[in-house]
Amino acid sequence: MPNTPLLDTVNIPADMRGFDIPQLKQLADEVRAETIDAVSETGGHLGAGLGVVELTVALHHLLETPKDILIWDVGHQCYPHKILTGRRDRIRTLRQGGGLSGFTKRSESEYDPFGAAHASTSISAGLGFAAARDQQGENNKVVAVIGDGSITAGMAYEAMNNAIEATDGQFMVILNDNDMSIAPPVGAMSAYLAKQVSGDAYQRVRNIGKKFVDHMPRPFRETARKAEEYARGMVVGGTFFEELGFYYIGPIDGHDLTHLVPILQNALKITDKPVLVHVVTQKGKGYAPAENSADKYHGVVKFDVESGKQAKAISNAPSYTKVFGTELIKHAANDPRIVGITAAMPSGTGIDLFGQAYPDRVYDVGIAEQHAVTFAAGMAADGMKPFCAIYSTFLQRGYDQVVHDVAIQSLPVRFAMDRAGLVGSDGSTHAGSFDIGFMGALPGMVLMAAADEAELAAMIATSLEIDDRPSAFRYPRGDGVGVDIPELAKPLEIGKGRIVKEGTKVAILSLGTRLQESLKAADMLEQAGISTTIADARFAKPLDEDMILRLAREHEVLITVEEGAMGGFGAFVLQMLAEKGALDRGLKIRTMHLPDIFQDHNSPMAMYDEAGLNAKHIAAKAIEALG
Amino acid sequence: MPNTPLLDTVNIPADMRGFDIPQLKQLADEVRAETIDAVSETGGHLGAGLGVVELTVALHHLLETPKDILIWDVGHQCYPHKILTGRRDRIRTLRQGGGLSGFTKRSESEYDPFGAAHASTSISAGLGFAAARDQQGENNKVVAVIGDGSITAGMAYEAMNNAIEATDGQFMVILNDNDMSIAPPVGAMSAYLAKQVSGDAYQRVRNIGKKFVDHMPRPFRETARKAEEYARGMVVGGTFFEELGFYYIGPIDGHDLTHLVPILQNALKITDKPVLVHVVTQKGKGYAPAENSADKYHGVVKFDVESGKQAKAISNAPSYTKVFGTELIKHAANDPRIVGITAAMPSGTGIDLFGQAYPDRVYDVGIAEQHAVTFAAGMAADGMKPFCAIYSTFLQRGYDQVVHDVAIQSLPVRFAMDRAGLVGSDGSTHAGSFDIGFMGALPGMVLMAAADEAELAAMIATSLEIDDRPSAFRYPRGDGVGVDIPELAKPLEIGKGRIVKEGTKVAILSLGTRLQESLKAADMLEQAGISTTIADARFAKPLDEDMILRLAREHEVLITVEEGAMGGFGAFVLQMLAEKGALDRGLKIRTMHLPDIFQDHNSPMAMYDEAGLNAKHIAAKAIEALG
Repeated sequence: MPNTPLLDTVNIPADMRGFDIPQLKQLADEVRAETIDAVSETGGHLGAGLGVVELTVALHHLLETPKDILIWDVGHQCYPHKILTGRRDRIRTLRQGGGLSGFTKRSESEYDPFGAAHASTSISAGLGFAAARDQQGENNKVVAVIGDGSITAGMAYEAMNNAIEATDGQFMVILNDNDMSIAPPVGAMSAYLAKQVSGDAYQRVRNIGKKFVDHMPRPFRETARKAEEYARGMVVGGTFFEELGFYYIGPIDGHDLTHLVPILQNALKITDKPVLVHVVTQKGKGYAPAENSADKYHGVVKFDVESGKQAKAISNAPSYTKVFGTELIKHAANDPRIVGITAAMPSGTGIDLFGQAYPDRVYDVGIAEQHAVTFAAGMAADGMKPFCAIYSTFLQRGYDQVVHDVAIQSLPVRFAMDRAGLVGSDGSTHAGSFDIGFMGALPGMVLMAAADEAELAAMIATSLEIDDRPSAFRYPRGDGVGVDIPELAKPLEIGKGRIVKEGTKVAILSLGTRLQESLKAADMLEQAGISTTIADARFAKPLDEDMILRLAREHEVLITVEEGAMGGFGAFVLQMLAEKGALDRGLKIRTMHLPDIFQDHNSPMAMYDEAGLNAKHIAAKAIEALG
Repeated sequence: MPNTPLLDTVNIPADMRGFDIPQLKQLADEVRAETIDAVSETGGHLGAGLGVVELTVALHHLLETPKDILIWDVGHQCYPHKILTGRRDRIRTLRQGGGLSGFTKRSESEYDPFGAAHASTSISAGLGFAAARDQQGENNKVVAVIGDGSITAGMAYEAMNNAIEATDGQFMVILNDNDMSIAPPVGAMSAYLAKQVSGDAYQRVRNIGKKFVDHMPRPFRETARKAEEYARGMVVGGTFFEELGFYYIGPIDGHDLTHLVPILQNALKITDKPVLVHVVTQKGKGYAPAENSADKYHGVVKFDVESGKQAKAISNAPSYTKVFGTELIKHAANDPRIVGITAAMPSGTGIDLFGQAYPDRVYDVGIAEQHAVTFAAGMAADGMKPFCAIYSTFLQRGYDQVVHDVAIQSLPVRFAMDRAGLVGSDGSTHAGSFDIGFMGALPGMVLMAAADEAELAAMIATSLEIDDRPSAFRYPRGDGVGVDIPELAKPLEIGKGRIVKEGTKVAILSLGTRLQESLKAADMLEQAGISTTIADARFAKPLDEDMILRLAREHEVLITVEEGAMGGFGAFVLQMLAEKGALDRGLKIRTMHLPDIFQDHNSPMAMYDEAGLNAKHIAAKAIEALG
């Protein structure tokens, strides 16, 4: 445990309001040490938090949190914030079952006024707080901290574009520019920021300073004149943000509290216009192994603080993500029309592997799922075969584009939906719970779920052949089950499932990777003398009607199992059976799906236990249905 | 019929490629006359099309369509485009059953490479075409035309931000700036555009001209020098677009073909950078009644060409939209925490009425559904009671925000989902088909559907009382059924349906405005001697389990009816009944929902006929189930 004499005196931000700059510097050092030590035990997001230690200290020193509203975009940089807001005693439970969330969370603390995990929501939410404050005649301050990656999303732009209309009072956006979101940032916006930082910083400082002073309320002008000195660290610029109605201040060094504190202090007094403060920070700052690593320890497993060495996980099977990337490479060798599209998640989706093999055939469009989907639709309309690889939860961002631009036009975009089902320590915000329902409801969509990595390979091959309409295949986070993958996988027959094990009394119809648990459940049932059939549906749409009708006809009990919410696969099966009259004379049918709650983070196994979707639950459900 | 001698010689764009400027001017005049005459017969979008007549003529004259790709954003301005691309013979079938779509549509013509109807997709789609062209080594041109309203959406920004990376070749965006989308445009972007148009146009023309020439390929420089003359009409500016990597040209008069044609001709030769041409047009141009009306004849019913007088529809009941606005005003008088939020659809949603009564409590955030939802979440988190009024189909744009920012945090945002179910002549892109499924799958959501206007009033009151979680109520396009609405509607008991008519053999469980058809179906069944119960579910979530279990227990046949896709209300009912064992011993249950196809535009009645959701279908389904 690090030595933290000053931090030990700070439980909540009020305890540090009286600190002077040297004390704040010491506090920042101690918070940094505590963050590193805690994450070395829990794993989690490290680099982003280390980059904002000084910013966190400065903001809680200056703001009257929790009365003042401080919103962290994404929220994975909030560990220092949690340490300073009454949660230090639980900081070594981060991302563990029953412990602190790895993101901000309203239910966890009054210092988290708005939770996050997906990118680019903070400006919208902050404006909501500012507008509510105006309506209620309050005078609290609102600050949204957003990264240079997150601010490129359309949603952040929509919010900035609305700022001068949505509030008449104080509103501050802090652009935390570490020139690196998860992947190297892409796009014109990022180049613009880089130009600002590297530009002829000093030359037009006076103008900025003058503008800064002029618009301040009269009583503050004297103070502001002092601030002007600090403004020498600013470069001119921010045209982009000024066009959107913001006062632009920056860039300033986000690790230098002697600059940061007084500039923020002055900027917080501006109430007649929204303000954007451009702060430059370094991801992984202050921890050499993080600073020196390529990903700045964005997300780490447990590690040794001294060496920075991370505990390697042992696995016998490749991750589904890797299988996707690898299989795509195989097909691409034979088909120049295959391209890969990612929305700022090349490594998370395996598109990075494809990009290493085919750099000219990868499009990383930035944090821009809406654009990603319609861009893919445009390519498909011109004869290409785009694979649009987006996590299930993030595809929610592009849902209208899936409906309007892909499905209605029946364009053959292939959606690779990684992180389907429960994802473990990232919790409810990252769970891929709803895609079976929201994709399966779309006319013409072919929707598959892989039971193992060989099935995933087959589904990629299937998708590739579907040239007259959209298709999608979902697969979970984590490693496969260890089955062999053929040299080049063969496509599946569309809308055909498979019988994995023949029985007579109970039929378990699984969609996706619950197949393993279904097989274990069958073992349990067989041991209890109950003959059990196991089927892998493979397709949530179109359904294998013949197979499912036969299962219904020939068994007393039919149970569907899926890693998704209500209104999904089981619902489709029921609606089909009802329409065919297969329920008219009675069928003990149960649809097992994710529970109708947002589940807190835990290990995937524990989460599926809570969900009641493991082998024992499936067996118990069958026995209960048998009566 | 207007006299159109030159237009009569033009069937497809190739027929006008050889025209000179005077001929193009005459052609434009004739296309305008034909457009006005056609829409006077069919109704539809008029103002937008009249604004782009010259632009349409210029583009088809210069481009080699359909080899060159021309994409119209939204697509409601495409009637002149349709007249010039082989569809003039059907132009008087616009928006009629079996006739031309009111938007661009791939299945309708090779000159519609990418369909639309929702705003802001054209730049993404165009970039997809450009990237596909690059991949395939082709050299066709790609042009996306987008309005000043549409370009403010986050999606358009995401696409612009990706343009310099997504293609290395020619790509042109034409910003059609009529300073008026559906509502007066909002936000900083709009102010910026206005500033450009009104700015000191002439002074820095030389610089622009020089830049324009410098970056052209060497052989074209001579031509470009001539273009420089035309560039005198340009003002300096476009910083915003230049920051995003575009060459900015403009603004230019979009009705002056002598400027438009040569400038576009030159700009189309630019291949080393994406180009943005800023064209200023006038909505409703060239038709006095449209020019002089407040909404520029954005959307009209049949009208008299001479007088401009529109045929008034006769109605005995207020529209659902108006009921929503009116009821919100009543409640707002008693509760200062009620605010209304719209994404650029104040009149479409009835928020305009609310805004007339409470101008300070309305937020029109622009075409920005993502921001609208999270902005509402922020306000709700700070104690306000936001009513977020968004069409069902457009809420798809904010789905992730509903999940991530509202539902996971259980914030009491109220979603007023107008245009639920089939909408008639706007067709499949505007149908509100999927919201029951995608909203109903979310834990904690309260989801209602109004059977008539009094029910809508009650649901607004109910929503207002739900203060610990999100709620949503859906209602259709069009007029109510004519029932009385109480002075101040009382809230419903959450999760409780109502029995409308008691019977014994068949139970029809309706959600939403199919209740009227269900009642008619019951009459038919009773006449056939089949005693029929009618229930109004009111809630798709939480379900009235007691009532539904009783219906299942006490009837031989149970039929659910809803104005939504599979995986919705009927699916939820089935999953609940299955889990409770209510299907174990047999139930003749059928779920009637929208068919699993995207339905083409027609009258709502005809569309529901095609969907098989009118009274006769419901009665037939019951009889079929009885066997």
